[in-house]
Amino acid sequence: MKELLKINKINDVKKLNLKEKEELAEEIREFLIDKVSKNGGHLASNLGVVELTISLCDVFDFKKDKIIFDVGHQSYVYKILTGRKDQFDQLRKYKGLRGFPYKKESPYDYFETGHSSTSISAATGMARARDIHKDNYHVVALIGDGSISSGMSLEAMNDLGFRKTKLIIILNDNGMSISSNVGGLSSYLSRLSLNEKYIKIKNKIKYSLDDTKLGNFSFKYLSRIKDGIRKTLVPSKYFEDMGLTYIGPIDGHNISEIEKVLKRAKKVDGPVIIHAVTKKGKGYPFAEDIPEKYHGVSSFDKKVGIQESKKDTYTAAFGHEITKLASTDKKIVAITAAMQDGVGLGEFAKKFPNRYFDVGISEEHAVTLAAGMSVSNLKPVFAVYSTFLQRGFDQLVHDVCMQNSSVVFAIDRAGLVGPDGETHQGILDLSYLSIIPNMTVISPKCIEELGILLKWSIDQKFPVAIRYPRGGDYIKMQPLKKVSLGKWETICKGKDLAIIATGKMVQKAYQIIEKDQLNITLINATFIKPLDFEMLKEISSQYKSILTLEDNLISGGLGHHILLALNDFDYSGKVKILGFHNKFIEQGTIEELYLQEHLDNDAIKKEIDHLIKKEK
Amino acid sequence: MKELLKINKINDVKKLNLKEKEELAEEIREFLIDKVSKNGGHLASNLGVVELTISLCDVFDFKKDKIIFDVGHQSYVYKILTGRKDQFDQLRKYKGLRGFPYKKESPYDYFETGHSSTSISAATGMARARDIHKDNYHVVALIGDGSISSGMSLEAMNDLGFRKTKLIIILNDNGMSISSNVGGLSSYLSRLSLNEKYIKIKNKIKYSLDDTKLGNFSFKYLSRIKDGIRKTLVPSKYFEDMGLTYIGPIDGHNISEIEKVLKRAKKVDGPVIIHAVTKKGKGYPFAEDIPEKYHGVSSFDKKVGIQESKKDTYTAAFGHEITKLASTDKKIVAITAAMQDGVGLGEFAKKFPNRYFDVGISEEHAVTLAAGMSVSNLKPVFAVYSTFLQRGFDQLVHDVCMQNSSVVFAIDRAGLVGPDGETHQGILDLSYLSIIPNMTVISPKCIEELGILLKWSIDQKFPVAIRYPRGGDYIKMQPLKKVSLGKWETICKGKDLAIIATGKMVQKAYQIIEKDQLNITLINATFIKPLDFEMLKEISSQYKSILTLEDNLISGGLGHHILLALNDFDYSGKVKILGFHNKFIEQGTIEELYLQEHLDNDAIKKEIDHLIKKEK
Repeated sequence: MKELLKINKINDVKKLNLKEKEELAEEIREFLIDKVSKNGGHLASNLGVVELTISLCDVFDFKKDKIIFDVGHQSYVYKILTGRKDQFDQLRKYKGLRGFPYKKESPYDYFETGHSSTSISAATGMARARDIHKDNYHVVALIGDGSISSGMSLEAMNDLGFRKTKLIIILNDNGMSISSNVGGLSSYLSRLSLNEKYIKIKNKIKYSLDDTKLGNFSFKYLSRIKDGIRKTLVPSKYFEDMGLTYIGPIDGHNISEIEKVLKRAKKVDGPVIIHAVTKKGKGYPFAEDIPEKYHGVSSFDKKVGIQESKKDTYTAAFGHEITKLASTDKKIVAITAAMQDGVGLGEFAKKFPNRYFDVGISEEHAVTLAAGMSVSNLKPVFAVYSTFLQRGFDQLVHDVCMQNSSVVFAIDRAGLVGPDGETHQGILDLSYLSIIPNMTVISPKCIEELGILLKWSIDQKFPVAIRYPRGGDYIKMQPLKKVSLGKWETICKGKDLAIIATGKMVQKAYQIIEKDQLNITLINATFIKPLDFEMLKEISSQYKSILTLEDNLISGGLGHHILLALNDFDYSGKVKILGFHNKFIEQGTIEELYLQEHLDNDAIKKEIDHLIKKEK
Repeated sequence: MKELLKINKINDVKKLNLKEKEELAEEIREFLIDKVSKNGGHLASNLGVVELTISLCDVFDFKKDKIIFDVGHQSYVYKILTGRKDQFDQLRKYKGLRGFPYKKESPYDYFETGHSSTSISAATGMARARDIHKDNYHVVALIGDGSISSGMSLEAMNDLGFRKTKLIIILNDNGMSISSNVGGLSSYLSRLSLNEKYIKIKNKIKYSLDDTKLGNFSFKYLSRIKDGIRKTLVPSKYFEDMGLTYIGPIDGHNISEIEKVLKRAKKVDGPVIIHAVTKKGKGYPFAEDIPEKYHGVSSFDKKVGIQESKKDTYTAAFGHEITKLASTDKKIVAITAAMQDGVGLGEFAKKFPNRYFDVGISEEHAVTLAAGMSVSNLKPVFAVYSTFLQRGFDQLVHDVCMQNSSVVFAIDRAGLVGPDGETHQGILDLSYLSIIPNMTVISPKCIEELGILLKWSIDQKFPVAIRYPRGGDYIKMQPLKKVSLGKWETICKGKDLAIIATGKMVQKAYQIIEKDQLNITLINATFIKPLDFEMLKEISSQYKSILTLEDNLISGGLGHHILLALNDFDYSGKVKILGFHNKFIEQGTIEELYLQEHLDNDAIKKEIDHLIKKEK
């Protein structure tokens, strides 16, 4: 680790010569494999951008120049190069180094990311601010080929190319988003970067650069340096039609080549996009082979790579159940936005390729595509992470619920997700889903119940959202036998208090009740919307205190809506709503975060005791 | 109206010959100008698609083929041609003919629209359903050049071109969205359709159509028919790079030319886009001159056109105030998503062109662009309609509020909007904004207060959303003198009851109190978030009943959050929450809709009487 030892603060990399930088790249790879295999984190994407990041930190001065990492999980190398390498033992741990850019962590993290495709918009805003302030620095966005084909990126490029804001986009093209890439634009990029024949044909066409102001980086000059830069520079009509200057494809693992292009791109007076071809997982054979397996990982033995472990998760159960249902119901189709493995659709994709639609990172399109399928007599199921469905909020309202279409939303990673932190916690969904007219919102209390609720949902004639958490169960419970619209389930009965809980929180409550043999009624609020008003009325007449429990924001969540109903019943007892307060929740293990938010079992027990004492 | 008389049900247009269809087009124009000038509605966009719609209804059989109108305000001609011409006297009126496609109105309205850029997604879903069911019909999406450059459309085309789903997109290119068009793609389209020199250059390049399956509509054939079709057919690399077959540009007012192309497009085996150039407002000189003025209109004298009327609206006040503030504060920048006039930014755009950003129909990009500007020391104000900001929900959460950036959202058309109906009512914003951590939500009680709140918002170091309604005030009120974070204003004091209202609902409550000289406390909840907990605590100790009043869904709104706070205070009195129930609200005048929703002054007065009686 000779070279890495020299890297202790920002711009230290500038002191290295080419050979040393190449050596540094290898050392960083070793460092990353070591740290991530021990602590978990994002591996393949960071291995892919080692040379790109070294070159960027060498050519730019990020004390004043700004960089934005799209999605942000590929910012580890940047963290190393900006003085944070010593914090990697605490990567993604509670109060430790963040897995994404984080402004409070470093003055060189300029914009926080986590969701895809925000970088060009943010960078455009920063570049325009620079121009208005008449400042003089560079703004760089590093974005993958999966993210760039999302609608938001295209909107940003459309605006950027129109106003010709000076900005450098590095397109990190590894031919994948999280799963392998899809989409017309992606195919096009592959053709650009891989099809030598295509490149030759393109070269025969006279470059028409009249529309793009190239400064002293003119076409003639570009032609002359062509041989200096190993790969051919091919202006892409696609990006140029958008108004951007295109340079590439270049080898994203060749520091010398990248740096030459970066230095020239700095001089371009307008938006420029550098198309760098990289290999995801580069330098770690296991990750090179199956990069999607090494995207976001838990700790593993770096000598043998990740071993298959069959865990009993909600995700796996969903994948299994929908495949089973689709075998007999030919109308079922499944949609994912570039998260085949994340949402558990691998088996379905293999078995029903014609009824499986991976639309790329396009949640907006995915929701309305499902709406279109629904009006034409299919039964679409869009499987998506809670936090990513936020991208489709307007489409949920306008295209699905307003027409009351029978689309099922299988919402994975609801509640806390743990080490991915603020940007990935699924704690808003009950709130943003419950306000939408016509939407039905349900949640299984245990894994086995997921299949039962899924089947019920698919058979309904209106939109249904099923939310379920990351990981598996705490305890085994008896699944519901029969689902009826707006009906809750009584788990156990007792006189002292009524607890109404949803999803996996039912298990927490049950654990607490069982442990001390409490004399408490526990209700599984299978339906978050509509509520079981009948049962609620009954409870309100029997109990002086009601406690509600959910892994969602209190604001707009289950308890908040129960309170509304109880107010209509003129309930005069005490209602205690347990959930998350109105703030973003950082990274950590789920248990650490529950402790912090006073939703660990001990804290819940205290609330119960307090209410029981009051009732007595 | 000889030809129009023959049009009484779907497919009647098929009986006409070319000359009769051309005559019909003129008659429809006259009909539209007459009806819309009397009742208000969307004029310019419908005048632009007369020939396109006639041709579509002639070439396709929309008893089985499906058509989706993007945005949907250009569906009047289709309504005429599918048997609804007699309902135009009730256009956009309460219980009358809808201004947008509406499934309950006609079996030939296949998908409801209102917001932009949903048509290609929905059409793709329908086309894939057709293929899975092995059905045999055509799916057509009619979309404008403003809508097609929005992210959602681009996501859809990316997916469509990748999987080569058979589908016909008609790009209705009039060089405008609602205001004049912006964006790199739009410029590109203009170059395609207008720049003869460009077309000539393109023609010299050998078309490479190998990637696109053209069926018997091969390039050779295309070349041969070229002279038959008056305009040159230019394959567009942009759309072809996406994987779509491009045909155009064609004259969108030449029925014979359109029909020829449509017939051939039917035979293309895969996605095809027909680029039709039209004139917005065609046939009505006033609308041709200033089409944006004739986009959505109220009734006017068709002989003299729309006359300028200086109305005292929230929109005008916003435009005036932000321009005034920007004169002294050079950091203020304004952003709109293609709604310059709608949100009142005309004056600002003229005065500060370098600090004014119209990003096109790109709400997602707009929000994050603002976030980027904010972190670089500008004070961005994104002015947007309540219902359209739904498109930026994830960006509000992830890019603005998570980083607690000082962006101001000037949210126009909050509350009921009236004749535009379900898709445009702004009754969700208090709910979806209030759940976002770090977001501050405020509303002025009268027009004069808007400027005061706007100035305050711009000076804060966190995100602020100001919502205000369509139109003007009911009554004049004294504006607030000083704004303090989380502080409410007491309008009048009385013993019998406390009313907490927000925005223009304060005026309604005040009217009721004044009329009968009621002995009631009226609070203006300037802050919807955070609430004024101190004042609320005081009120809760003084009153046995509290009534809340808002023009938003009850679920997740002001009253619902007040209830939450009162529950924490262990308030034992009666809380009555007035707002909209969890359903979509149709078209009508705002007063008709208030009556329907029991929020008219008489209904509110009844609730007040009921509570006072109870209190006594």
